[in-house]
Amino acid sequence: MGSEGLSYAAAGVDIEAYERALERVKPLIAATHGKEVVEGVGPFAGLYALPGGGHLAASADGVGTKIKVAIAASSHRGIGVDIVNHCVNDIATARARPLFFLDYFATGRLDPDVFTQLVEGMTAACRAAGCALLGGETAEMPGVYALGDYDLAGFIVGLVEPSAQRDAVEPGDVLIGLPSSGLHTNGYSLVRKVFEDVPLGHVFSELGRPLGEVVLEPHRSYLDDLGRIRWKGAAHITGGGVLGNLPRCLPDGLAARLDRKAWRVPPIFELIRKRGRIADDEMYGTFNMGIGMILVVDRRDVPEGGTVIGEVVRQAGPDRVVFR
Amino acid sequence: MGSEGLSYAAAGVDIEAYERALERVKPLIAATHGKEVVEGVGPFAGLYALPGGGHLAASADGVGTKIKVAIAASSHRGIGVDIVNHCVNDIATARARPLFFLDYFATGRLDPDVFTQLVEGMTAACRAAGCALLGGETAEMPGVYALGDYDLAGFIVGLVEPSAQRDAVEPGDVLIGLPSSGLHTNGYSLVRKVFEDVPLGHVFSELGRPLGEVVLEPHRSYLDDLGRIRWKGAAHITGGGVLGNLPRCLPDGLAARLDRKAWRVPPIFELIRKRGRIADDEMYGTFNMGIGMILVVDRRDVPEGGTVIGEVVRQAGPDRVVFR
Repeated sequence: MGSEGLSYAAAGVDIEAYERALERVKPLIAATHGKEVVEGVGPFAGLYALPGGGHLAASADGVGTKIKVAIAASSHRGIGVDIVNHCVNDIATARARPLFFLDYFATGRLDPDVFTQLVEGMTAACRAAGCALLGGETAEMPGVYALGDYDLAGFIVGLVEPSAQRDAVEPGDVLIGLPSSGLHTNGYSLVRKVFEDVPLGHVFSELGRPLGEVVLEPHRSYLDDLGRIRWKGAAHITGGGVLGNLPRCLPDGLAARLDRKAWRVPPIFELIRKRGRIADDEMYGTFNMGIGMILVVDRRDVPEGGTVIGEVVRQAGPDRVVFR
Repeated sequence: MGSEGLSYAAAGVDIEAYERALERVKPLIAATHGKEVVEGVGPFAGLYALPGGGHLAASADGVGTKIKVAIAASSHRGIGVDIVNHCVNDIATARARPLFFLDYFATGRLDPDVFTQLVEGMTAACRAAGCALLGGETAEMPGVYALGDYDLAGFIVGLVEPSAQRDAVEPGDVLIGLPSSGLHTNGYSLVRKVFEDVPLGHVFSELGRPLGEVVLEPHRSYLDDLGRIRWKGAAHITGGGVLGNLPRCLPDGLAARLDRKAWRVPPIFELIRKRGRIADDEMYGTFNMGIGMILVVDRRDVPEGGTVIGEVVRQAGPDRVVFR
């Protein structure tokens, strides 16, 4: 990284500190797990075996500081879409069909217009996913949230398809990249630093539309794609970017070899890289770079029109993701 | 209310504004509900019919500005207990046994000690409830949360006991009050105003121990009580206090007649009332007043040692809760 370039840690977010703290509490968490817990903290979703058979998948998510951009732009509907689709995608990687969603909305003082926009976005995304908005909590917390500020968290429960048989990921399997709709919900602390002196209405020539619109583009859902394609493993590219998430769908000993030329990185990412003078590792370790979901598929199952962005190889060095 | 007395709205929380906003979005939420949704937004938990039979109950909750007191006292373990037990109690009113819990922890900058204390509290309460801590989201959001500030939300899913047959609540049924362990997680914006000039280490003679200890006493679980007692309806006394929550377990046309002399209001509530010169309606509409769970039971099912605090009557006036 250039000595003056920006990094995610310098923007105030330290993922490694969290990983260390999480390692320390893992035994406490494991002690709450009976035999019903199939997977605990770590993957994109937790899996729980129902007494009557079948598995539930659950995930909790936030939208991060994308909320600050939405507040600055007075545009909140997309944040509602973001939180639902983030959750939907997380459990879709466990082959779960969404059953219901609940939200937690906290603010300094309830603004009915913000609340209504958020619910409009959440309910639209829930309907599209066939998911019930089953409940939620709305908290007014003066003193924690500044006037106008808020936070939104989401919680989803899905039912794992009973027929879901996952073939083992093997060397030679192919990586299919599904396009993202934009930044989705990650890297916004860095994005806000990069554009701190730029009005949201500014139109960069590379973007062709106002900056605020581009960075607020809602997180898309991959539910239909994941139902249509035959796949072995799926990585939802969220916090930690491509480098942080892709290894999560690979067994130990295997790595991903990516061909960066296989897809076109959308202009917003190039603009962020250029303006922030951000190193490649930082970019790929923070953002989705235009690929919001990566599927591991058998070479014979590459879908028509699918973008092959790399392949699964035996891990040769310390890195789980290498570039061709 | 005395003209100089404090109210919850004056302390920055406006529950009525939320109720109005919620009324407006209810049709949007209802449009996400298929026939699987047994109860939506409104009661203490949402109920969802599983495809294979049986019902899940789910609830989302926060801890409110009790967090500000915990931060001032550098004591966070109890907040972890609070969030789990709040959730456990909510779904217990739907006769649900907890299956799993997920948390959402958001902060300005991750403090590993705070995080560890919270997980210690959450895992202890989860183990006590036989509930798995299945996952969670930890978000560093510089710019939303001030340094040292954080928020914690919880989501719980439980399985409704298959044998659970709920007899109809009728006039003449008896109200049993289960003692609270303190303020639980409600009314803290008002509490903080009332004690804003008092150090947390101060020992009021009526309390006999430091103020901070009393107000941080964790929210207790009623899971065992609700499993032991035969009951028809249950009201978890949370935000909105006795007046706001008791009617939620009563059918239309019925009201609760409470005998305030039937239980002793703990000293912390009397101290708050006195110092804040707070009206009775405001006290009973904000706090649990020493009763954290109210059960409706048949007159023949009053448990040994149970505190009868009132009875169910036909509603005669506009109020759903009247005092004897």
